[in-house]
Amino acid sequence: MTLLKTLAPAAAIVALPTLGLAQDAVPGTDASTDSIFIFNSLLFLIGGFLVMWMAAGFAMLEAGLVRSKNVAMQLTKNISLFAIAAVMYYLIGYNLMYPLGNWSIGTDDTGGYLGAFGVAVLEAVGVARDGADDYGYASTGSDFYFQLMFCATTASIVSGTLAERIKLWPFLIFTVVLTGLIYPIQASWKWGGGFLDSQYGFLDFAGSTVVHSVGGWAALAGALILGPRIGKYGKDGRVTPIMGSNLPLATLGTFILWLGWFGFNGGSQLAMGTVGDVADVSRIFANTNTAAAGGAIAALILTQVLYKKVDLTMVLNGALAGLVSITAEPLTPTLGAATLIGAVGGVIVVFAVPFLDKLKIDDVVGAIPVHLFAGIWGTMAVLLTNADATFMGQLIPIIIVAVFVFVTSGVIWFILKATMGIRVSQEEEITGLDMAELGMEAYPEFSKG
Amino acid sequence: MTLLKTLAPAAAIVALPTLGLAQDAVPGTDASTDSIFIFNSLLFLIGGFLVMWMAAGFAMLEAGLVRSKNVAMQLTKNISLFAIAAVMYYLIGYNLMYPLGNWSIGTDDTGGYLGAFGVAVLEAVGVARDGADDYGYASTGSDFYFQLMFCATTASIVSGTLAERIKLWPFLIFTVVLTGLIYPIQASWKWGGGFLDSQYGFLDFAGSTVVHSVGGWAALAGALILGPRIGKYGKDGRVTPIMGSNLPLATLGTFILWLGWFGFNGGSQLAMGTVGDVADVSRIFANTNTAAAGGAIAALILTQVLYKKVDLTMVLNGALAGLVSITAEPLTPTLGAATLIGAVGGVIVVFAVPFLDKLKIDDVVGAIPVHLFAGIWGTMAVLLTNADATFMGQLIPIIIVAVFVFVTSGVIWFILKATMGIRVSQEEEITGLDMAELGMEAYPEFSKG
Amino acid sequence: MTLLKTLAPAAAIVALPTLGLAQDAVPGTDASTDSIFIFNSLLFLIGGFLVMWMAAGFAMLEAGLVRSKNVAMQLTKNISLFAIAAVMYYLIGYNLMYPLGNWSIGTDDTGGYLGAFGVAVLEAVGVARDGADDYGYASTGSDFYFQLMFCATTASIVSGTLAERIKLWPFLIFTVVLTGLIYPIQASWKWGGGFLDSQYGFLDFAGSTVVHSVGGWAALAGALILGPRIGKYGKDGRVTPIMGSNLPLATLGTFILWLGWFGFNGGSQLAMGTVGDVADVSRIFANTNTAAAGGAIAALILTQVLYKKVDLTMVLNGALAGLVSITAEPLTPTLGAATLIGAVGGVIVVFAVPFLDKLKIDDVVGAIPVHLFAGIWGTMAVLLTNADATFMGQLIPIIIVAVFVFVTSGVIWFILKATMGIRVSQEEEITGLDMAELGMEAYPEFSKG
Repeated sequence: MTLLKTLAPAAAIVALPTLGLAQDAVPGTDASTDSIFIFNSLLFLIGGFLVMWMAAGFAMLEAGLVRSKNVAMQLTKNISLFAIAAVMYYLIGYNLMYPLGNWSIGTDDTGGYLGAFGVAVLEAVGVARDGADDYGYASTGSDFYFQLMFCATTASIVSGTLAERIKLWPFLIFTVVLTGLIYPIQASWKWGGGFLDSQYGFLDFAGSTVVHSVGGWAALAGALILGPRIGKYGKDGRVTPIMGSNLPLATLGTFILWLGWFGFNGGSQLAMGTVGDVADVSRIFANTNTAAAGGAIAALILTQVLYKKVDLTMVLNGALAGLVSITAEPLTPTLGAATLIGAVGGVIVVFAVPFLDKLKIDDVVGAIPVHLFAGIWGTMAVLLTNADATFMGQLIPIIIVAVFVFVTSGVIWFILKATMGIRVSQEEEITGLDMAELGMEAYPEFSKG
Repeated sequence: MTLLKTLAPAAAIVALPTLGLAQDAVPGTDASTDSIFIFNSLLFLIGGFLVMWMAAGFAMLEAGLVRSKNVAMQLTKNISLFAIAAVMYYLIGYNLMYPLGNWSIGTDDTGGYLGAFGVAVLEAVGVARDGADDYGYASTGSDFYFQLMFCATTASIVSGTLAERIKLWPFLIFTVVLTGLIYPIQASWKWGGGFLDSQYGFLDFAGSTVVHSVGGWAALAGALILGPRIGKYGKDGRVTPIMGSNLPLATLGTFILWLGWFGFNGGSQLAMGTVGDVADVSRIFANTNTAAAGGAIAALILTQVLYKKVDLTMVLNGALAGLVSITAEPLTPTLGAATLIGAVGGVIVVFAVPFLDKLKIDDVVGAIPVHLFAGIWGTMAVLLTNADATFMGQLIPIIIVAVFVFVTSGVIWFILKATMGIRVSQEEEITGLDMAELGMEAYPEFSKG
Repeated sequence: MTLLKTLAPAAAIVALPTLGLAQDAVPGTDASTDSIFIFNSLLFLIGGFLVMWMAAGFAMLEAGLVRSKNVAMQLTKNISLFAIAAVMYYLIGYNLMYPLGNWSIGTDDTGGYLGAFGVAVLEAVGVARDGADDYGYASTGSDFYFQLMFCATTASIVSGTLAERIKLWPFLIFTVVLTGLIYPIQASWKWGGGFLDSQYGFLDFAGSTVVHSVGGWAALAGALILGPRIGKYGKDGRVTPIMGSNLPLATLGTFILWLGWFGFNGGSQLAMGTVGDVADVSRIFANTNTAAAGGAIAALILTQVLYKKVDLTMVLNGALAGLVSITAEPLTPTLGAATLIGAVGGVIVVFAVPFLDKLKIDDVVGAIPVHLFAGIWGTMAVLLTNADATFMGQLIPIIIVAVFVFVTSGVIWFILKATMGIRVSQEEEITGLDMAELGMEAYPEFSKG
């Protein structure tokens, strides 16, 4: 930054035409079509690795918010679910989600309902321009990589709610179904060009509904069938707070998620090879950041006002709720609007956490307020800044997705409960899942309080 | 890496002209002007998310270096200050810092002193080429996003020094003023084309002075007014070391900062759409890395020689001081010079930490040695490798910024002290800020030593 | 993601030619040669910072898997070795590895054996197109930065195996030799165009052998000369498991490594300025991810089957072994093949860890199974998917590298043992290296179990 920002690069551009004869940097030239393909693919690769990093964020957030006796199990679940999502999305999810017109049920015109079956296949090594699957878009490998991470995120959301009492293997089996079937099928309805996209004009830019509420509904169904942790809700209606064992980890997880969200929302522009597209990606980065800030500040102030003490975990969840809130429409809001949309998300979390406790729904990390409630809010908030959104075009798809995910998840949870059981024994729960199920401790040398 | 590096891509380029007629990859062609705009914006987006990640680095570093009874509070401060910086920079900071000629006091010619007021406004959605704010530069959204992160970094520096004794809300109010006014105003003097840039020819590439020393001066003013922690300095002149509670966290924070610094310094090239610009960004990445290495090794060897034992926290701060030292000029040094400039930073830290203790200035994490002392050194070290720098052109701006920041910060701290008080009670400090102010513990299950 | 993926960007491209006269985005145009240079350099910068981040991953993994009394030392070793690698690679390693034909012993034609001596020199500031070292490739600074990180990775592998008993300074001196001489010399044989490349047609895309097995052999030589930790192997042949002190850190480290590996393998494509190259980088990202998933799932299932309990550290090491396994050839496999190649890596780890214990080779973090055994597997697995690979062309270089690294490392370890000693005293080992050698604790406030 040796010069003020407006002078340096302009000078560089002016200097260019003097360097040789074969120049194309005359003012007002598009990127070449190859460059557009490369820029778009690169956006997916960068976006994808940032969203992959969110898996670590969820792992740290959840490991920090459970008690130390359940930390190793929570870590095991998180890394395993990410691995399972990767394989299931390859085996079945990707083509279910993006049938490219080859619907098993429905058509692009009448409305697609169930995508195509078959494993994902990438372009050949060293593919030439005319061999590319979609030269006007991006490489299939980059698209697969990016989209896979969204599927994995959905599964990460579920693990936090059900922590400290669910058995490992039923949880993983649920993850198989969620990432192989439930997520991709409903995602195809919008992002695969299915009936929510074609018939309702549903707008959900990066997935307040398609990703976050889906994770939330699946978690809610599980929480209802699983029941609360022992000791959480007394018979007299008293709620016993159960504190997380490691708040630095939880904070680290939040920062990781905040960072990864730039890829989540920014990559969802799906293109950055033109002036308009890269400027849009930039808007999205800025809006995503400020929405998180709005959510954090709202929770900071609100907990101070309500409880006379700031609650760090509420601030963390406020930031996350701000991120979820802006995810359905991170592009059209101004910075100010994005801040307010995020702030409302933060407010929702502060009120929703005790509300769930009143209903005796035990959500260990607050994933339902953050991902489901703020996800619904964010999806409806599209109406505030995007003239293409309609009230019913947003609301009905929210309800359709809700019913589909809640019912299918509920059925799976119920079957798992009826067959192998989903909850550890009372004794194991009190001992902690780490020793009971894994036979190891997360912090074997530190005494327990 | 199937072939040695010089053969593979050259072969690829040779092969290209055979693919079709409409080719522009003939030797010696510039990127299109759209591509330059996209490359520059992309540099800001990548640089910006890396610098955003530094906020997590500061949070982890500081959480690791305070005692466990103050960890939750330190985390709360760090995530809150980042959120506040985001909102204040939007509301007022960005236009104060980059008035683009519209100075409230001064002009580009006579010297700008106070920038423009008003909220930041991004380019419209899907902006066309001729609608871009600065087509020869980058998207406004990417620039805003990138610059915001520097503002937040400045605030992060302050929180470490004042840890373990400052109240939450006065600290946050100071952050409001620092990120909304103090930082942007002085930054405009250099990076907004103000009087330090136009009248002194001051060179500070990525902010050894504009960011790091500013954070350091604000922290120093606070430390002097706040006073040291109870028990740190005995009446007999003895200094009681107070150990950090979690050195893995502190190390993680250092690695995060090291990583983020590539964006901090590399992004400050402000352009990568030409051969010269991307080669410069590459030089900066390499120099930044080696300066950190130099600082770490200097501290490693020096603590072994001086104390017969290596001091991990000194090695961590040595690396950080190396990074601060190279920040004012990461481009012009050779790799060897960059290593030595960083190494001097590491030496400074090893001597400055006990020096501050002699003055009974209690800097919990060593932020003043790292960011202020190494920041001054780095700013003067520009003279060693950049012929455009002059001794007085570096020294006088350092002093001007110092006076401005130290005085304004001191006034704010003094007002806060006189009105709401800035320090917790003696009892609360001994109890720890976590239980006293927040009512929660960072590690509730681990016993305290 | 407002439209399905096939429509949005195509529409954008169609719209472009209407914007002005000087257009080059007609269908089928290459990126300009400047753009190719920029894309390639950018790949190295992004790849490089991701691989740099792996240094933090190793630090966290190892800090989590040692006992708390040795954590500060493990952190000290990790940050110091990274700094040393940076300086040694600058001073001598880079030109030893990439002599560009100027071999000290041998020639490109007859086979290069020892590269060139001299410090690394980057391109001049603001280099013009015709001043670039290799305009058809990428900026030298970006190449140096990227390659340096591979050298540092090799050193990171060693520190884990030898943890909890090796003295600090002998370890760092070994690191000097490893990063300045051993790694670059053998790497030149393949990646510098030396005799393994020219005479054997050895294929090792990103370094299953050149990086990972090299770290593994150096670690194995050290482990044999250093001996196991006190109490690990009883006289009756019993193996006492020594549990890691902080599994969230170990999991975080694994996620960091997983993330960094996208840069490690993806950047090794060395180019992304054409459709074929960026599609290949995309394939590599996708394959790398799924191989890690395969390794994790294999270890997950196998430990359940074998031990009736899932072992989290095995799952972590399984994921890492999957990553190492795909590193020699991340491009040619299909997603399915990549998953299976990674899964075999996970299986190897589960069997190799107890196998090493039977041999009384004490590898604290499992680095030898992960990096050496899976590295050999991955190098041979190239035969499965790449028709250019030959059995002997893979096997003989594996053996040559093995002999070279094992012997030279062994000699260095032996000299260090004979002169300054490499192992702490029995008393210091029992006390822990943190208090004994550093005089500080990693977690001073948490009681030890």
